[in-house]
Amino acid sequence: VRNAGEHALLARIRARVGRPPDFVRLALGDDAAIVEPARNTADVLTTDAIVEGVHFDRALMSPRDIGHRALAVNLSDLAAMGASPRVALVSLGLPDSLTIDEFDGLFDGLCDLAAAHATAIVGGNLTRSPGPLFVDVTVVGSVRPRRALLRRGGRAGDALFVSGTIGGAAAGLAWLRREETALTAPAAPGTTAAEQERASAVTRYRTPAPRVRLGTLVGRSRAASACMDLSDGLGDAVAQLAAASGLGARVEASALPVHPAVDLLDLAPEHRLTLALSSDDYELLFAVPRRATRALRAAAGQARVDVTRIGELTRPGPVVLVSAESECPWPAGFAHFSP
Amino acid sequence: VRNAGEHALLARIRARVGRPPDFVRLALGDDAAIVEPARNTADVLTTDAIVEGVHFDRALMSPRDIGHRALAVNLSDLAAMGASPRVALVSLGLPDSLTIDEFDGLFDGLCDLAAAHATAIVGGNLTRSPGPLFVDVTVVGSVRPRRALLRRGGRAGDALFVSGTIGGAAAGLAWLRREETALTAPAAPGTTAAEQERASAVTRYRTPAPRVRLGTLVGRSRAASACMDLSDGLGDAVAQLAAASGLGARVEASALPVHPAVDLLDLAPEHRLTLALSSDDYELLFAVPRRATRALRAAAGQARVDVTRIGELTRPGPVVLVSAESECPWPAGFAHFSP
Repeated sequence: VRNAGEHALLARIRARVGRPPDFVRLALGDDAAIVEPARNTADVLTTDAIVEGVHFDRALMSPRDIGHRALAVNLSDLAAMGASPRVALVSLGLPDSLTIDEFDGLFDGLCDLAAAHATAIVGGNLTRSPGPLFVDVTVVGSVRPRRALLRRGGRAGDALFVSGTIGGAAAGLAWLRREETALTAPAAPGTTAAEQERASAVTRYRTPAPRVRLGTLVGRSRAASACMDLSDGLGDAVAQLAAASGLGARVEASALPVHPAVDLLDLAPEHRLTLALSSDDYELLFAVPRRATRALRAAAGQARVDVTRIGELTRPGPVVLVSAESECPWPAGFAHFSP
Repeated sequence: VRNAGEHALLARIRARVGRPPDFVRLALGDDAAIVEPARNTADVLTTDAIVEGVHFDRALMSPRDIGHRALAVNLSDLAAMGASPRVALVSLGLPDSLTIDEFDGLFDGLCDLAAAHATAIVGGNLTRSPGPLFVDVTVVGSVRPRRALLRRGGRAGDALFVSGTIGGAAAGLAWLRREETALTAPAAPGTTAAEQERASAVTRYRTPAPRVRLGTLVGRSRAASACMDLSDGLGDAVAQLAAASGLGARVEASALPVHPAVDLLDLAPEHRLTLALSSDDYELLFAVPRRATRALRAAAGQARVDVTRIGELTRPGPVVLVSAESECPWPAGFAHFSP
């Protein structure tokens, strides 16, 4: 993109973004975008950046995957609030080595996922990066204030439920790193069950599916007392949700819905668990009062996502992991800035 | 910040940000922020990143300056729409070399400018950067839809006015690059007029003052038919505003309010003009119908900012620069991606 010029790149973005919905009064090309607020709702705002060398490796993900992922991580944050996305802004730091085809692929991935979630790309920024490619996305959505899902609000005795599976994204990355043919034959499902599980895990890593519909349905049904997403893994999410609610938690190791591809990695048991608990799966963790269990399962059924009861919130105290042999302290989640 | 941990950094941000205003229902620490929309207005959204090695050099700007600038460039975009800022999100890419003191300084600069413009920092993201420091800010504000200032809307015969001076930021940067004592004795005003002018230019480069009050006052008074900010220089702004309005423009070289520090650089006349026209001064360019000239001057007086008539929009055609000797084609503005 080095010699393309900002206006030429903006034209390529416009061609992909298409016509905005009516509530967007002005998009792309002025100093800022103008958007009509949704009625009787509050705005919900989140921003999240993915950086080459930290969150992705261009040898293991296609430009389209990178664009998808950059938006998905933000949509997941909105899902965790029970909010519906409306508009997105995309800020890119472009290294000189990025080609026009890669630039187009990145926006194809972004725009396809945006279209799937009725999210209008209304603005953004392009700049050169003398270092890594970075994609910083801001998403603004809406929620009826009393339907918002917060991290705080869980009560002792509330069950903990997680959507989908955990560990798949980390297992997918591990498989990509092991296989040299990573990008040439990426997610082609093989014929054996193991090959299909590996392909599923790679897909979960490359193109995570944010649980937007599940989040909004659970918010509307008021089935959850607290919620957050698994952007830093289930280990981090349980610890954060319990801390925000001022409580402890117990999680049953045997109840964790670990993605089958994790077991194909042949890890030692403690490494298997660490991988599953630190995997950035973009699933949702809910605290659910006993009386609301049926409402949660109904919302999950409507969203066509499995939910699994993995434990419960307890009175103020530590977070513990319970297995057949022992109770042990909760393994710390992936921490961005630890050495 | 390498060993600080995300939660410790978040605590340092919280201590600086302070208590949010009542319209902010939830800020900092959940998956997303929740903000009540302003009544009878539309949301105005913009995002802009500044990147080390592209937009700033850590040898020439303090962390506080960098934080100030990252927010200022976004506030300037809102000013150019006639919108009032309400909330900001801050996404940071932090190299390992950044110290905790520098991190704190960056947020001090951000928070001081945010407080000066009643802008609440409600969310953001922290990530490691394996390359340059980058600071990506999103600002959301509000405007009554019919008061919004767009780039398009100018009519042939409308006068072009620019606020403040041009060239100061570029002259300030040039002075910083010439002086080795740049950061040690930065903007201390000297005793001579020349020293004071240089110090003024350095301040304009390091801590640009976004024209938020001028923009909102002009929007409310409906004095301008079109507006944009000078983020890429006046050269770019005149060309863009004329193009968005489908018109040509004439600018009088002798009318340009060039910052006095530009002339202290002793440049050849053509270089002097190029520098002044490509300087990122974050002033505002307005197209003003004849009947609205008085309203514009009244708004400028109320905002305590000078405005200068530099030319006019003309029927569809080229943009030309008129000097005593000749008419010549408009010099191209600074282009991000040109080689």
